Amino acid sequence: MPNKKPLNIGVVGCGYWGPNLIRNFNSLDGANVRTACDADERRLAHMKRLYPNIETTQHFGDLVNDAEIDAIAIATPVHMHYEFGCESLRAGKHAFIEKPMASSVAQCQELIDLAERQKRTLMVGHTFIYTSAVRKIKEILESGEIGDVLYITSRRLNLGLFQKDINVAWDLAPHDISIILYLFDEVPVAVNCQGKAHVANGVEDVTNMSLTFRNGKFATVMSSWLDPNKIREMTIVGSKKMIVYNDIEPQEKIKIYDKRVEVPPHYDTFAEFQYSYHYGDSHCPHISQIEPLKVECQHFIDCIETGAKPQSSGIEGIRVVEILEAASESLRKHGAYIELRRTS
Amino acid sequence: MPNKKPLNIGVVGCGYWGPNLIRNFNSLDGANVRTACDADERRLAHMKRLYPNIETTQHFGDLVNDAEIDAIAIATPVHMHYEFGCESLRAGKHAFIEKPMASSVAQCQELIDLAERQKRTLMVGHTFIYTSAVRKIKEILESGEIGDVLYITSRRLNLGLFQKDINVAWDLAPHDISIILYLFDEVPVAVNCQGKAHVANGVEDVTNMSLTFRNGKFATVMSSWLDPNKIREMTIVGSKKMIVYNDIEPQEKIKIYDKRVEVPPHYDTFAEFQYSYHYGDSHCPHISQIEPLKVECQHFIDCIETGAKPQSSGIEGIRVVEILEAASESLRKHGAYIELRRTS
Amino acid sequence: MPNKKPLNIGVVGCGYWGPNLIRNFNSLDGANVRTACDADERRLAHMKRLYPNIETTQHFGDLVNDAEIDAIAIATPVHMHYEFGCESLRAGKHAFIEKPMASSVAQCQELIDLAERQKRTLMVGHTFIYTSAVRKIKEILESGEIGDVLYITSRRLNLGLFQKDINVAWDLAPHDISIILYLFDEVPVAVNCQGKAHVANGVEDVTNMSLTFRNGKFATVMSSWLDPNKIREMTIVGSKKMIVYNDIEPQEKIKIYDKRVEVPPHYDTFAEFQYSYHYGDSHCPHISQIEPLKVECQHFIDCIETGAKPQSSGIEGIRVVEILEAASESLRKHGAYIELRRTS
Amino acid sequence: MPNKKPLNIGVVGCGYWGPNLIRNFNSLDGANVRTACDADERRLAHMKRLYPNIETTQHFGDLVNDAEIDAIAIATPVHMHYEFGCESLRAGKHAFIEKPMASSVAQCQELIDLAERQKRTLMVGHTFIYTSAVRKIKEILESGEIGDVLYITSRRLNLGLFQKDINVAWDLAPHDISIILYLFDEVPVAVNCQGKAHVANGVEDVTNMSLTFRNGKFATVMSSWLDPNKIREMTIVGSKKMIVYNDIEPQEKIKIYDKRVEVPPHYDTFAEFQYSYHYGDSHCPHISQIEPLKVECQHFIDCIETGAKPQSSGIEGIRVVEILEAASESLRKHGAYIELRRTS
Repeated sequence: MPNKKPLNIGVVGCGYWGPNLIRNFNSLDGANVRTACDADERRLAHMKRLYPNIETTQHFGDLVNDAEIDAIAIATPVHMHYEFGCESLRAGKHAFIEKPMASSVAQCQELIDLAERQKRTLMVGHTFIYTSAVRKIKEILESGEIGDVLYITSRRLNLGLFQKDINVAWDLAPHDISIILYLFDEVPVAVNCQGKAHVANGVEDVTNMSLTFRNGKFATVMSSWLDPNKIREMTIVGSKKMIVYNDIEPQEKIKIYDKRVEVPPHYDTFAEFQYSYHYGDSHCPHISQIEPLKVECQHFIDCIETGAKPQSSGIEGIRVVEILEAASESLRKHGAYIELRRTS
Repeated sequence: MPNKKPLNIGVVGCGYWGPNLIRNFNSLDGANVRTACDADERRLAHMKRLYPNIETTQHFGDLVNDAEIDAIAIATPVHMHYEFGCESLRAGKHAFIEKPMASSVAQCQELIDLAERQKRTLMVGHTFIYTSAVRKIKEILESGEIGDVLYITSRRLNLGLFQKDINVAWDLAPHDISIILYLFDEVPVAVNCQGKAHVANGVEDVTNMSLTFRNGKFATVMSSWLDPNKIREMTIVGSKKMIVYNDIEPQEKIKIYDKRVEVPPHYDTFAEFQYSYHYGDSHCPHISQIEPLKVECQHFIDCIETGAKPQSSGIEGIRVVEILEAASESLRKHGAYIELRRTS
Repeated sequence: MPNKKPLNIGVVGCGYWGPNLIRNFNSLDGANVRTACDADERRLAHMKRLYPNIETTQHFGDLVNDAEIDAIAIATPVHMHYEFGCESLRAGKHAFIEKPMASSVAQCQELIDLAERQKRTLMVGHTFIYTSAVRKIKEILESGEIGDVLYITSRRLNLGLFQKDINVAWDLAPHDISIILYLFDEVPVAVNCQGKAHVANGVEDVTNMSLTFRNGKFATVMSSWLDPNKIREMTIVGSKKMIVYNDIEPQEKIKIYDKRVEVPPHYDTFAEFQYSYHYGDSHCPHISQIEPLKVECQHFIDCIETGAKPQSSGIEGIRVVEILEAASESLRKHGAYIELRRTS
Repeated sequence: MPNKKPLNIGVVGCGYWGPNLIRNFNSLDGANVRTACDADERRLAHMKRLYPNIETTQHFGDLVNDAEIDAIAIATPVHMHYEFGCESLRAGKHAFIEKPMASSVAQCQELIDLAERQKRTLMVGHTFIYTSAVRKIKEILESGEIGDVLYITSRRLNLGLFQKDINVAWDLAPHDISIILYLFDEVPVAVNCQGKAHVANGVEDVTNMSLTFRNGKFATVMSSWLDPNKIREMTIVGSKKMIVYNDIEPQEKIKIYDKRVEVPPHYDTFAEFQYSYHYGDSHCPHISQIEPLKVECQHFIDCIETGAKPQSSGIEGIRVVEILEAASESLRKHGAYIELRRTS
């Protein structure tokens, strides 16, 4: 039976993304943001102005030790995800951790194990799988309309915002990767990644990743903090149709193209052999305009209450981090093919 | 002193591209297409209908043995470039070979050596370096306006036309690579390439290449025969400004963005450290609309008459093929980093 | 029974458009361009170069008096359409006249009457009704998919090419008007037109026309020779769906939007009254890429041979000219509402 | 000397637009929204949730009679602007009235006179003249870069939101008209307007207006509630260059085209006479992203404190309403040319 009292949420990290979590959790009937935590007093003062009823603190311990807090949402720089996640779970709080889940596969595994032992909900902020657009694409794929998915190519580019502790792949590619894994419903067997650091020494600002899956499935992910335009575009090539998903478009984010190559079933001579190209209609399905972060926050609340496994649980989180870890290894090894061990 | 009599040209290969060569050579005052050669009678009949004064033959020997023919343009499938190129040069004809120059670096080198010995002009059909757009970009780069070029990312995608003897990288990437080498004025030190064959066994229809240059310079080249849209787009990221070159745009092919990341020159504490982002005007220079193939054909005629080295000579041709050869090796080795030996 | 011998065509006017007629008539099995006529020797020399077998003349009489010529296509400035059309028909030739058909309704009527008396085919070059895109739209309208057509708004803008003898409405709007009449299948009851002449005294270079039809149907036509972009766009608003037809798009010229306003069927209080807005999918039907002028030229040949009335006969021609004449009158009367007398 | 105590603002009308006024006035240091007024309790409850410190009332008298309130912002349906504006001014409050200022020229004049007698600031919500884009265009025009402005054509189209008390011209065209008057710095001498009501009886949902200025200057304004796309586009054609202002573009709202027609200065024969077309670069100036409503609200506060005349004062308000009134008259008279009496 659902809990009638709203869940009390603590949020740590009030920089770029944390305020969006606060706003969305606060807009839900089942949740209430009790405390916001940040090292920077000015950010806390700003939160207080926007939400006069919120408590603020510079000490993460105040969240963990507050018996009234049911769940903690972590929107700090990545290198603090693991520590804050562990402390939250150990204190018996449910944990919502922004993407990427942690700095290594090992950290992710510990968080998963801890959540299991503590019987607490652990969810990772893979926001895009909660968007109407990505869910619509998943629905189209499952309907069989586009045939077998052959490959996916994704680009996420813009000017800035540079991170200091992670490279552009760790910053931007978790979005593409989480969508690709969700759509393929399969993890890759290996990763190649090349890239370069042009602005900050040792921090790649452009990366070019290739993901190899079983049975010839393939994906590429291009990430950049150094592009004049904001681009968030993914092409899903199927054997029957093709989809372009342009997240920047305000209205028509998905376009389905009835286009394909047709290989003749049999032929006698090489000269007879001709591919034919099918060009048909294109189609933009209507997509409801719901803030995905609201859907995601509601899902976290629902999972806490029902005990269900989140759609972006620790498992999904560790899969993304495993790919990022392999990408980093590939970058160090000049783009070499890095096989993934745990492709469960 | 320039030759007053128009040069007689033989063209072999009247499939997709050859007719464009015939049309353009014929439109020049200094040239005259004397004979068209193709294995397919119907293609020859079609050429005859369009150009009643042209001779046609199914035998390449008829071109080589015709003392009136000064130069031969080769627009056949790639695997015939080497043989036809050698025969032409040996017969004392100047040779114009479509891109990619040949099937291997070794073949290219033989063609170069042969042309030198025969004192004949050898030119490769890297059409894009004769476009107003690419020349304008080169001019902008040389002016210093965009600062140091940090990286170039290029995509050339469409549905079809599948080749049977070469993969999509050999088919489409010569365009991107020849432009990138022209703009960087430098050859890469290594190549990574991943990709997959989805339609024809063993013939990759999507490839994702990374080129590593000295001093952190970098380029990526994405090629596909399986994309719903025709895309020919290149982004040139400089330290001061950025350029997007969209070859599909009918008018404004080049857009220069006054955008960059500014790193603070010095700072005392890490907390003080902040990148700043500069956003300024954008600008589309007017580009004259001249058919690049006409410029290219004229350049071939001029080089024959003056003895000058073409802007896309055998050297440029072999450099592109060396990268393609390395890309093929990288594809076989799961995307491994393949160093280029002869980066002269 | 169809004529086996190709029809001999004479073409008068080899400026901007005439060469397209020559090329297309020549590409048809059933036609052969025998003679090209123009006052300018250089244009004739150019035609001769392109089509060595064509005869050329500076005297229109040479076309009319040539017993071998079956039909004459008139692509001269508008003020010569009437005279050349009459001479052609009187000489027993079939006549194809470019749009607009003539300089006045009276001239059009004489041409229609003459063609009838002479039992010759009279066709007007309303090219757009022969395009795959406009025919597809007509088909969609007839299917009932978009409901009742409420209004059509059309824009045809570009920089140049200025005409000297007619204003921009006479130059560009015949395209829009012929499409609108074809789609509505109805002639307007009145025309308003405002505009201004900025470059050449007395020759409007921008006009803004409104067409009033029966039953609340409505259309607007904006024409300009002074716009930075080439725009050819038409929006057809139906009671159930809406169509945007963008002729500049190379591929997806038509887009159907499943959008509409829904008025509540009944309501008790004003406060209850709320419109609702339906937003659904959008859809781009595939359109075959056939040169419309070829379809149009073939249709002319077919009509001559079968005696059928062309889809753009003198009737369609006079309807367009009547609207243009009314537009000119409205322009002189400061945009006043000019009723059309013969709205048959 | 500026007032140190923030001005107390009352806002009447909490439907679609009023909440934006509340949010913006509240964000300013010099203002404080004291009371929100609306007939609908649910809207007031919603305001209270967003701004817990605000007072709410269903009675406009509570604003007028509150001695603490310095200024009243009126965001009600248009037919209430006059009454609420008069009551506010009579009570000694400064008045900010949304566009269009009132339902008639007579009402506007009374409001202007009353404000003058009461020595109170009267400002009209012509938001667009406070946008960075429109101000940038004005700056470009004043610099002489585009030469003389020949004509302006504007379109403001979307699906909905239907108004019940005014037609689409009164609803949407005030934006276009206020921008056009600001850019031309001149009022038109006459108005033509055609249009039709398709959805609600007697309420035009599409209108097509032409504005005639002195010296050949011209403007057109197309307005529609029945278009599949949201369009807010204006083209400003100058004798030297042309500007397209696309307000929907998130970044590059303004594009300047170096294009023009060049008329030869003199010529001997008609045959020699040729227009030439100049095609040069295009350019998108960077525009700062400031919320125009915030600029506008600040300007109202500043004008109250300094006594300066607002840039969108009652004068600008009455000019827009005079054009709308003439447009309504023209609509009734089938698009007739309606001269404006008071073109001061």
